[in-house]
Amino acid sequence: MEQSYESISWQEDHLVILDQTQLPLREIYSDIHTIGQVWDAIKKLKVRGAPAIGIAGAYGLYLGVRELESKNFTSFNVELNRWIEYLKTSRPTAVNLSWALERINQTVYANKDKPLDEVKKIMLQTAKTIHDEDKRVCKQIGENGAELVEKEANILTHCNTGALATGAYGTAFSVILHAHQQEKDIHVWADETRPLLQGARLTSWELKKAEIPFHLITDSSAGALMNTGKVDMVIVGADRVAANGDTANKIGTYSLAVLAKENDIPFYVALPLSTFDLETETGEEIEIEEREPEEVTHIAKSPITPKKTDAYNPAFDVTPNKYITGFITEKGIVEPDFKENIAALFK
Amino acid sequence: MEQSYESISWQEDHLVILDQTQLPLREIYSDIHTIGQVWDAIKKLKVRGAPAIGIAGAYGLYLGVRELESKNFTSFNVELNRWIEYLKTSRPTAVNLSWALERINQTVYANKDKPLDEVKKIMLQTAKTIHDEDKRVCKQIGENGAELVEKEANILTHCNTGALATGAYGTAFSVILHAHQQEKDIHVWADETRPLLQGARLTSWELKKAEIPFHLITDSSAGALMNTGKVDMVIVGADRVAANGDTANKIGTYSLAVLAKENDIPFYVALPLSTFDLETETGEEIEIEEREPEEVTHIAKSPITPKKTDAYNPAFDVTPNKYITGFITEKGIVEPDFKENIAALFK
Repeated sequence: MEQSYESISWQEDHLVILDQTQLPLREIYSDIHTIGQVWDAIKKLKVRGAPAIGIAGAYGLYLGVRELESKNFTSFNVELNRWIEYLKTSRPTAVNLSWALERINQTVYANKDKPLDEVKKIMLQTAKTIHDEDKRVCKQIGENGAELVEKEANILTHCNTGALATGAYGTAFSVILHAHQQEKDIHVWADETRPLLQGARLTSWELKKAEIPFHLITDSSAGALMNTGKVDMVIVGADRVAANGDTANKIGTYSLAVLAKENDIPFYVALPLSTFDLETETGEEIEIEEREPEEVTHIAKSPITPKKTDAYNPAFDVTPNKYITGFITEKGIVEPDFKENIAALFK
Repeated sequence: MEQSYESISWQEDHLVILDQTQLPLREIYSDIHTIGQVWDAIKKLKVRGAPAIGIAGAYGLYLGVRELESKNFTSFNVELNRWIEYLKTSRPTAVNLSWALERINQTVYANKDKPLDEVKKIMLQTAKTIHDEDKRVCKQIGENGAELVEKEANILTHCNTGALATGAYGTAFSVILHAHQQEKDIHVWADETRPLLQGARLTSWELKKAEIPFHLITDSSAGALMNTGKVDMVIVGADRVAANGDTANKIGTYSLAVLAKENDIPFYVALPLSTFDLETETGEEIEIEEREPEEVTHIAKSPITPKKTDAYNPAFDVTPNKYITGFITEKGIVEPDFKENIAALFK
């Protein structure tokens, strides 16, 4: 299963990202040389998707420190932590970013007695490892999840969870991709995912590239499709999952989960272990990013509302664990009791 | 409560409509002189909203027959019925159109012994009566519904149900308008209502004109707002309500109703009696209009998806009666048992 595109790649001394704000009309790759450019790319959603943000952040941290001329580890470490806090501010909800930065931080600390040039090389190597691991993890998520897909299935998905959002293959999208590759008769309902239309722009683009049959729908059509027997399962990704299974994901996920339960349709969340946040006990503790009203009041910079219209634009919502059938991870499927079974993944 | 705009008005010898496809950026009034122009205006949503379609259709039927030079009632009646069937094809889901055309047809039949010029005048007079009645009915709906609104309330609504969609005041919007006029502390969450953004374009415009505090939201935010205690009641309009209370309305209504029930939030449907269709026993019998995929794949004629993306675009959905708290009509509030209590409205 070869992809003809990579959302993130490291090339000699810099990062190259596929600018997702330009898709699907233009396939433009941008060179990224500084941590400031990484922060900006994450903030402006040029790179997006919880795992991809983690990968970009890991490379970004290296870009931040590589020119530092610190005299000793202590002063280096102060700068490093400053950059870590800076990068975290780019998007608060997805946990993978904190996870990746923390992992590099720990590696740095474990190597603190080495020369700083050596430490910097180890940081880059760790970023590459995080990137490579994500590719393997996403493949495994796809293989594990495909076992849940019937021979014929209408699968509904939300937002974009494909290779664009990860190192490769995707999370929820990887399940669809692997089921399709196994020659199951798959048809996808792709939610357009307002306000930024990641489904219309990105998932449609990836489904077309993979030649998987699909129809795009408005987000509010999903319920009616479920209620008229047109949906066999729902699979979504996640930005942060609490220790009890409460799941923060793109706005609209909560509604899909309630509607799936009401219509007895299985509702799965596909994610790498790095998206679990065991330090967050329940969904109530998860910070929800609110984005600019202009994302709702304008489309492609043109206004669609009267002047000075106020909009409320939460980027994510929290789905309580009771609506979730199971989690599809690289270590298998997690069913209830979620608190117990999620904890067991990390033992 | 004066409005500064009328979506439909009859001026001497022709109809004038506010072209809703141009709002909110341009307030353009179009002169309509032929039945073909009425059909086109309904099909292209220049005039929309179940009651407004009925009113426009009534005037349109008169425009269709006024130049006829039939020799006798029988040949006149053949032409009349041809035009009625033609107008019905403009939009199949809203029942008010059929209701208005049928009412004129009956009036014509009751006057069939009069000279045809006289019959034509009676047709125009009946259209004006339907128009005037709708204004009175919408006012009464607003007054009846306002009694259900608490002194402080966050009201969520979907699509556009204001004066633009009716003769005046609106249906669900009339309830909001009257509660606001009674100086209740109202705040509205207006669903943008994809794909055609009637919430973003039209409800925002009407809320601004009426100076009612509101925030625009994406359709898929509604569930999360309900789940976080930010919504006190939901009020929507309807395009056709079956004898048992099953309700066809703008796509997304079903989802809102399920989410409201799940969160113990009252869910009301506001409508004139002309929107009930007692000949339709349940929602399963209601024909759902499917519209062009381009409404989803393009915004303002610009593509938002890869080329040749398929989209499925049902314009309406059906909400089973079990999710509905009550119907707000000009004859009062209808509570369960709906089949019995809806029938009682017409006795």
